[in-house]
Amino acid sequence: MEEHQILELLEARKFKELKEELGTMHPVDIVDMLEEIDERHMILIFRLLAKEEAAEVFTDMNSDMRESLINGLTDSELEEVMDEMYMDDTVDVLEEMPANVVDRLLMATDEETRKKINVLLQYPEDSAGSIMNIEYISLRKEMTVADAILKIRQVGINRETIYTCYVTEKKKLVGCVDVKDLLTAGESRLIEEIMDENVLCARTLDDQEEVATTIKKYGLVAIPIIDHENCLVGIVTVDDAMLVLQDETTEDISIMAGVSPNEDSYFGTSVFQHAKNRTLWLMLLMLSATVSGEILAHYETAMSAMPILITFIPMLMGTSGNCGSQSSTMVIRGLAVGEIQFRDFFRVVFKEMRIALLVGILLSIVNGIRIYIMYDQDIVLAIAIGVTMIAIVCMAKCVGCTLPLLAKRIGLDPALMAAPLISTIMDTCTILMYFAIITAFFRL
Amino acid sequence: MEEHQILELLEARKFKELKEELGTMHPVDIVDMLEEIDERHMILIFRLLAKEEAAEVFTDMNSDMRESLINGLTDSELEEVMDEMYMDDTVDVLEEMPANVVDRLLMATDEETRKKINVLLQYPEDSAGSIMNIEYISLRKEMTVADAILKIRQVGINRETIYTCYVTEKKKLVGCVDVKDLLTAGESRLIEEIMDENVLCARTLDDQEEVATTIKKYGLVAIPIIDHENCLVGIVTVDDAMLVLQDETTEDISIMAGVSPNEDSYFGTSVFQHAKNRTLWLMLLMLSATVSGEILAHYETAMSAMPILITFIPMLMGTSGNCGSQSSTMVIRGLAVGEIQFRDFFRVVFKEMRIALLVGILLSIVNGIRIYIMYDQDIVLAIAIGVTMIAIVCMAKCVGCTLPLLAKRIGLDPALMAAPLISTIMDTCTILMYFAIITAFFRL
Repeated sequence: MEEHQILELLEARKFKELKEELGTMHPVDIVDMLEEIDERHMILIFRLLAKEEAAEVFTDMNSDMRESLINGLTDSELEEVMDEMYMDDTVDVLEEMPANVVDRLLMATDEETRKKINVLLQYPEDSAGSIMNIEYISLRKEMTVADAILKIRQVGINRETIYTCYVTEKKKLVGCVDVKDLLTAGESRLIEEIMDENVLCARTLDDQEEVATTIKKYGLVAIPIIDHENCLVGIVTVDDAMLVLQDETTEDISIMAGVSPNEDSYFGTSVFQHAKNRTLWLMLLMLSATVSGEILAHYETAMSAMPILITFIPMLMGTSGNCGSQSSTMVIRGLAVGEIQFRDFFRVVFKEMRIALLVGILLSIVNGIRIYIMYDQDIVLAIAIGVTMIAIVCMAKCVGCTLPLLAKRIGLDPALMAAPLISTIMDTCTILMYFAIITAFFRL
Repeated sequence: MEEHQILELLEARKFKELKEELGTMHPVDIVDMLEEIDERHMILIFRLLAKEEAAEVFTDMNSDMRESLINGLTDSELEEVMDEMYMDDTVDVLEEMPANVVDRLLMATDEETRKKINVLLQYPEDSAGSIMNIEYISLRKEMTVADAILKIRQVGINRETIYTCYVTEKKKLVGCVDVKDLLTAGESRLIEEIMDENVLCARTLDDQEEVATTIKKYGLVAIPIIDHENCLVGIVTVDDAMLVLQDETTEDISIMAGVSPNEDSYFGTSVFQHAKNRTLWLMLLMLSATVSGEILAHYETAMSAMPILITFIPMLMGTSGNCGSQSSTMVIRGLAVGEIQFRDFFRVVFKEMRIALLVGILLSIVNGIRIYIMYDQDIVLAIAIGVTMIAIVCMAKCVGCTLPLLAKRIGLDPALMAAPLISTIMDTCTILMYFAIITAFFRL
């Protein structure tokens, strides 16, 4: 249903119809719709949602929407929403809210929940513990399949996912059982007999990106999380893993463009914050670029002797920057998805060198023909520029592929070694290489 | 277990122990291990795997490994592997193999399977139909929960996912039931009563990226796929969706670096193919950059009159390129994850303009101080370069944010409007702007 239809029903005070309509909509779509309308209407519509749906809608909102909603709701309304929310989502919400809102939200939960929340809030940001869900199904080895199904039936309603059940012994994780296996095994069989003892698991302090990558690599719907005593304390589900991977990719892409990454969305970030995220790198690169400028000025006499030389500078600098960025981007992405490791160093360099030779020769030929035609068949010039082109392409591909690998090796983020930095370095290298070759060719 | 330990067991002909060890390993890890060892050993180890595991290992291999394995196996061994594979995986394998291998593989399947495979092979590449799984659980409305559980128990073993069951009526999709609901509802209740009629679904010809994005957006474990007659024909599961999203992101990142995207991995792509993927853009950009060169040559007299002018060119060109790339990258990523739409055009431009002003002024001040100190307190020069800096930052951010949005509008891939193209355009704009401002300041 479109937002204007919803608003019409609201204006006409057809609350019963509106409630029914909302009941058929997916929470994610309700959030999309609420984003477009004003605050007063948003609160009215939110109040019409069924309890469970309201909690889901609240979970899916961005932090601005949540804050204005919290300010509009009464304490008892807030309590209802908090009761229905999953623990991990509650923690996510709390982590983003200003302190006074957090206090009000915590007041709206019962004491037991508050304790659990406080434990979860202590896990470092970006750790598996901070995104895990503490609601899951745990079984014991000596249960039968029928017992297990009964347990799921009894407690399953409030569990975010029951697709995999975990078998524990004195809180320690000893196996897992897929719902599929529960349903397909005979009712009288023991859990011990059908459980899989080789459980992939992660630890509370593991990086969330690593955990999400494991979920992707092994095609899991959830992964159990254990603490330092190997006790099962929660699970991370595939839907959260997808969001983690998306955020990490956005972070990588930002860094690769010379922008400090940001948790918030594009529009959710203030102009001032955007400017701050972008200035640091620009400033650094701007100051580094002055080196190229100084070197260029140094060759002034060469350029006055042969004014045509300056014509090729933008082309050479541009090409070397682009060549270097291509290589560094390929390597950075390969490292991110696990296709390339540091141990592949020489394999990568050897591959890039052969690519560089091929690409360099091709570009030189095309460019040579252009120069030969445009500049009165000056074959020496065509050859000199061609040699320079091959040299800078090789140099750019070499710098471009080695820097991300070296960064990885010393524990820096390889994404830092992307286009902005590589082109700035290559600008300097290109000018030096260009004048070295030109001087040799024309004895300037 | 490490690969050298596996090889030791193999050398010592301890096949029973080796078989047991392999049984405890995850298929994904077995593939990682097989990747590192030679072909002869790979085939020996593969033969030791249990049937089901062998099929999973085969599915997870890259195409080179698969091909050499297929050449090493007998027809009856191949038949066993093919029997155990899921239909969608079989199709994926077939799509990548050379024609003679495909014939041999198809010979190894029974006639019914062959027919189904041929239907799946006809869906266009990158469509939902091409990645969907045709094995799923379908229920009828008039079944009870107990009937449904019985059906799952009977047929569930061969289904890749049973987490969501689909309710059909004359093959048309009418609802879905989560396994969670089956387990938590009373046994005598009808499917009709507990099913959810608002089923999110996709069509066979929908783009696979769209389908994967829907799965991510709504946090699904699977989405049903219907054909042009609204009949249920398959499902796409979350694990496949994650791989689709990863591939699409890699594709975007490649395009953003001026590299034509490639289905294969970095090492799986030949040097020649890599060079081909990179040369087209480089060639185009190289030739476009000659425009900047010609314009630069045009201002030769201004530069001879005031040789210091050339010093600032690399810095100005670099900064404008970086500024433009920052904006275009933010917008391209925002479009990809759905945070930005074309209708936000003016909001984006307005935001970027304010960011540009802030950034431009900051950079001008820092740079102004540097010039004032380094070049004998030449305040006019400091101001002239400062004004140029603000102008080019604004221009770069404007070009950088509008081009991806316009590309999206006219149906081009926004990722094309990334760093390489933006910096080349900005090089030309920067030189023009620079000399226009400098000429005005110094009346050259």
